[in-house]
Amino acid sequence: MSVTADLYIEVKNFYARQMRVLDDLDIERFTATFTEDGSVAHPHRGEKVEGREAMRTKMKSMLPMYEGLVTRHWFDHFLIEQAEGDGLRVTYYSLVTQTNTQDEVHFFSSSSVEDQMVREEGELRIRERVIHRDNPKYGRVI
Amino acid sequence: MSVTADLYIEVKNFYARQMRVLDDLDIERFTATFTEDGSVAHPHRGEKVEGREAMRTKMKSMLPMYEGLVTRHWFDHFLIEQAEGDGLRVTYYSLVTQTNTQDEVHFFSSSSVEDQMVREEGELRIRERVIHRDNPKYGRVI
Amino acid sequence: MSVTADLYIEVKNFYARQMRVLDDLDIERFTATFTEDGSVAHPHRGEKVEGREAMRTKMKSMLPMYEGLVTRHWFDHFLIEQAEGDGLRVTYYSLVTQTNTQDEVHFFSSSSVEDQMVREEGELRIRERVIHRDNPKYGRVI
Repeated sequence: MSVTADLYIEVKNFYARQMRVLDDLDIERFTATFTEDGSVAHPHRGEKVEGREAMRTKMKSMLPMYEGLVTRHWFDHFLIEQAEGDGLRVTYYSLVTQTNTQDEVHFFSSSSVEDQMVREEGELRIRERVIHRDNPKYGRVI
Repeated sequence: MSVTADLYIEVKNFYARQMRVLDDLDIERFTATFTEDGSVAHPHRGEKVEGREAMRTKMKSMLPMYEGLVTRHWFDHFLIEQAEGDGLRVTYYSLVTQTNTQDEVHFFSSSSVEDQMVREEGELRIRERVIHRDNPKYGRVI
Repeated sequence: MSVTADLYIEVKNFYARQMRVLDDLDIERFTATFTEDGSVAHPHRGEKVEGREAMRTKMKSMLPMYEGLVTRHWFDHFLIEQAEGDGLRVTYYSLVTQTNTQDEVHFFSSSSVEDQMVREEGELRIRERVIHRDNPKYGRVI
């Protein structure tokens, strides 16, 4: 079932804010957009990080990969569906670019993403994110 | 005249679904998003394919170009206008990327697209698509 | 405070039209999307161009950079906030690509943009645009 225009835009605003804090490497504010037990999975490398604490640890360990670059996530083709309760299932395309000190922009990755969202105290939060990295070896999932 | 927010989002959902099936190379489901006599034109190579049957044949012949790659279409800057009857004229930018087995993302093309949409049994369908490949030789159309 | 779905889409339509005329290098119609005293700043090169007349002069001087290429601006992650009066503050990501006569697409730049919009005779216009070029040297602003 289709969601209302207001909910559609609320979801788009959620991602606009979440990507600003992610691309700003603000781990504290990024993990706060997940539920306390929220998870991020990268099935192509057999990885699932569960809970904000584990996410913070994992992200801190990966910071060196992002230093000296401006990373940007570009999303497209959102589909937003009602899930159980007042939850939502959101799927979209995700392209990641990085810019270096020489003003050169490069592709970092292309993926599709599946998010399970819930509402906590009125705010949308991610309970489960699955990132399917594009690679013909894995097949296309979304 | 501007369309309602609900119709705007219905159109965006149409493209989100259509691109998933196109990028999944699901020819059957992709051609079903066109009317039976729907057409796709590429004026820069003087080509116009008319009707679902001809589209299926053409797409099957082009499948080898897409093997071993994940193709993604990224759209932007939609303008949605009411056309005759309950039809719509939709124009937008289209960027196509491809990812190979080495996780490398490359540009495939940049274009602008004009779609004429109609409603059949409640569903939006494309009756005519014209893809203007970006190239300074052809001039910019949209 | 969040804006209505109708206003959200009106703003998106504004950018869809503004980018068509910018990417078409139509200086006259592009500057008309700004107020008469509208400005465009590029803080990373310490530049601020004020007023339509100065914008026209500046843009004409830069046309050679864009000749023989099709330039496209791709926007994402809009946040639209009410500002004083009936004004709006709009921020978003901006990726610029260029396609040459050999059909090759290249990145030109990655930026974030802050626009202050006002309404004049019913039409949205930009009063102030600040373009923050992505570069780890400058830090991330949006």
